[in-house]
Amino acid sequence: MTDMDVRGVMAAMGEAARNAAAELAFATAESKRAALETAAEAVSARRAEIIAANAKDMEYGQAKGLSPAMLDRLKLDDARIDGIVAGLRSVADQDDPVGAVMAEWDMPSGLHIRRVRTPIGVIGVIYESRPNVTADAGALCLKSGNAVILRGGSESFHSSGAIHACLVEGLRAAGLPEAAVQLVPTRDRAAVGEMLTMTDHIDVIVPRGGKGLVGRVQAEARVPVFAHLEGICHVYLDGAADLEKARRIVVNAKTRRTGICGAAETLLVDRAFLDRHEAVIRDLLTAGVEVRGDATLAAIEGVTPAQDDDYGREFLDMIIAAKVVDGVDGAIAHIRSFGSNHTDAIVTEDDATADRFFQRLDSAILMRNASTQFADGGEFGMGAEIGIATGKLHARGPVGAEQLTSFKYLVDGNGTIRP
Amino acid sequence: MTDMDVRGVMAAMGEAARNAAAELAFATAESKRAALETAAEAVSARRAEIIAANAKDMEYGQAKGLSPAMLDRLKLDDARIDGIVAGLRSVADQDDPVGAVMAEWDMPSGLHIRRVRTPIGVIGVIYESRPNVTADAGALCLKSGNAVILRGGSESFHSSGAIHACLVEGLRAAGLPEAAVQLVPTRDRAAVGEMLTMTDHIDVIVPRGGKGLVGRVQAEARVPVFAHLEGICHVYLDGAADLEKARRIVVNAKTRRTGICGAAETLLVDRAFLDRHEAVIRDLLTAGVEVRGDATLAAIEGVTPAQDDDYGREFLDMIIAAKVVDGVDGAIAHIRSFGSNHTDAIVTEDDATADRFFQRLDSAILMRNASTQFADGGEFGMGAEIGIATGKLHARGPVGAEQLTSFKYLVDGNGTIRP
Repeated sequence: MTDMDVRGVMAAMGEAARNAAAELAFATAESKRAALETAAEAVSARRAEIIAANAKDMEYGQAKGLSPAMLDRLKLDDARIDGIVAGLRSVADQDDPVGAVMAEWDMPSGLHIRRVRTPIGVIGVIYESRPNVTADAGALCLKSGNAVILRGGSESFHSSGAIHACLVEGLRAAGLPEAAVQLVPTRDRAAVGEMLTMTDHIDVIVPRGGKGLVGRVQAEARVPVFAHLEGICHVYLDGAADLEKARRIVVNAKTRRTGICGAAETLLVDRAFLDRHEAVIRDLLTAGVEVRGDATLAAIEGVTPAQDDDYGREFLDMIIAAKVVDGVDGAIAHIRSFGSNHTDAIVTEDDATADRFFQRLDSAILMRNASTQFADGGEFGMGAEIGIATGKLHARGPVGAEQLTSFKYLVDGNGTIRP
Repeated sequence: MTDMDVRGVMAAMGEAARNAAAELAFATAESKRAALETAAEAVSARRAEIIAANAKDMEYGQAKGLSPAMLDRLKLDDARIDGIVAGLRSVADQDDPVGAVMAEWDMPSGLHIRRVRTPIGVIGVIYESRPNVTADAGALCLKSGNAVILRGGSESFHSSGAIHACLVEGLRAAGLPEAAVQLVPTRDRAAVGEMLTMTDHIDVIVPRGGKGLVGRVQAEARVPVFAHLEGICHVYLDGAADLEKARRIVVNAKTRRTGICGAAETLLVDRAFLDRHEAVIRDLLTAGVEVRGDATLAAIEGVTPAQDDDYGREFLDMIIAAKVVDGVDGAIAHIRSFGSNHTDAIVTEDDATADRFFQRLDSAILMRNASTQFADGGEFGMGAEIGIATGKLHARGPVGAEQLTSFKYLVDGNGTIRP
């Protein structure tokens, strides 16, 4: 396609999304639930077709020289299809957020005021190789009454198309507009540029992917963005930490899965914890983690000396930076300088110290005596998430269906006039 | 000042605001209340000084040839000073939103999750001639724990400066950072351009003023904006309207104050109401309103024929456009085409019709059997407002202290790790 063609295609999709959103705003909870239920059945029934489409993508990805990790993210098999089906059903079963009364009150004037949830409008989702995002993002946007324009990675072109067809089948069966969930039909990267500037047709962009993608979106978007660029998660072991909790949490926060945004990247050790820290460091080394420590910590056998730029770095790998700090205020100062306002944890038995950490830091998620790997919509009870946001406007932390809504005020009077 | 100087001044103010915001985020409710209380006392005590400063502004405004309406907005007298003092006290007495637990729940993993209100950070407020905005906006931002950079109109330069000095006195007395409330110290318009692009130092811009100012801000800002461009408010008289309520509401919605954004600008009359509409139109004419009607309505003596561009026009004057529509769906279609998502009202005794109007329109405020003039933070119980927003992200409708907050998640475990 030429750039002109791409512009025309995107403008038409935007127009269709706007119209679909106007209808979706008052679609019944039951019709949205039914659409997602039918889509789940369709994904399950058409799994052979989806896996065949995925095989084409895998071939394309191998030819393109994708890394084994990328190919693994792209791959669909029976178990992953089951996961997609379960995800769709889980969103289908959630409470419908639209129309919920968030607050209501009476005024002395006689007015009764209700604040009621509404959809935002049109969401744009830009993602990379994971084809399941097609189902997750499509489902969450539909549940929250928003139309969505999905732009999957070029690697997952056929897989996403096959899954998208199932979502459309669900919409059709439920009598909802098919344009409620649209997939950009071209691999042309110009489509992304269009989405980022379609302020008339898209209300929010949600990028799902690595730093390259998210950075580009944040820099170029004229449309508001819900996103985080990096998850530089810290675990701080306070002098009043329980050693066994510290050991369990540090190993889990670093090693359970290293490639997710909630994985710990830096370990901060209170000087007052230095009588017990070796057990924690040895656990990490034993688990196969490369520990890059400051001068004090590098004295432990197996620890390598950290470079300055190891602090504030998102390794997404079996590597952790480690540093000694002076008490909770030292940890707070370090996190303010090097953190990314994503998720940071303190291990301590002291309530006042934990409160200070919770009050003085402004990460989207702050944890006490728990692993940073819990930074996830499912673990927060949201059923699913479309991403995690570190901005402070509208959405923050895991973004589920509820955070994809806005609100309006409905005011009832009885011939009431203002004096 | 040269542009370079302005840039340097604004960058320094931004830096100071960021630092103040970090401290304000955990300032006690009592210290913020005390600062506002002291500021109220200072405004009252220094009223002669403030009125003298205002006299300089009035002289400047007269020399500049400001309209009588503009001069009236600018003018401060004893009664208006009392109003400012009362406003500061009312915000002082409000509940402190920061730290409030918005929701909390337990997860099967053992985690206890709290969602807690936090300030947004730094707010930029750009306004025109009303000097009281200095106090209102400063107070609301402080109450919500945000630092604020105020940029008043060049006409109110001295008045705003004198009021600002009282706010600073309050901050100082309460031991809070003086940079929590800063006033741009130059009339140079380049300062506005700087504020609109200071994404590192300002989190949200709130413009208060006419269409020219708001339009410029919305077009040029790189910082997110809470604003409405126009208040094209409609009143729809349904076939099932009560005539007496209709008469009361239409006259109040149009004439109580014509210059505010909640004033009605268009009257929509259901074809089924045409047996009773003349009384309403005559009331308007008797009140001195110029009624611009479509062909049907222009048949009434005293009504002038409407031009196409009278629909969707914000008169802010004793003029109203009027049109016959076919039922509630006709009204909905008209408002979708010509409205500005601000405030729209229906007059009807029929619940199903009112529900349809409430469901299918997406104005920030929808009213039934009440005057659109109630579109105001005070009338919504917010104590004060920094403005009214028609966007759908974060803030919507009247923006009080609560909507100037964000939130974070505080998660408590007990050595909890993710399987």
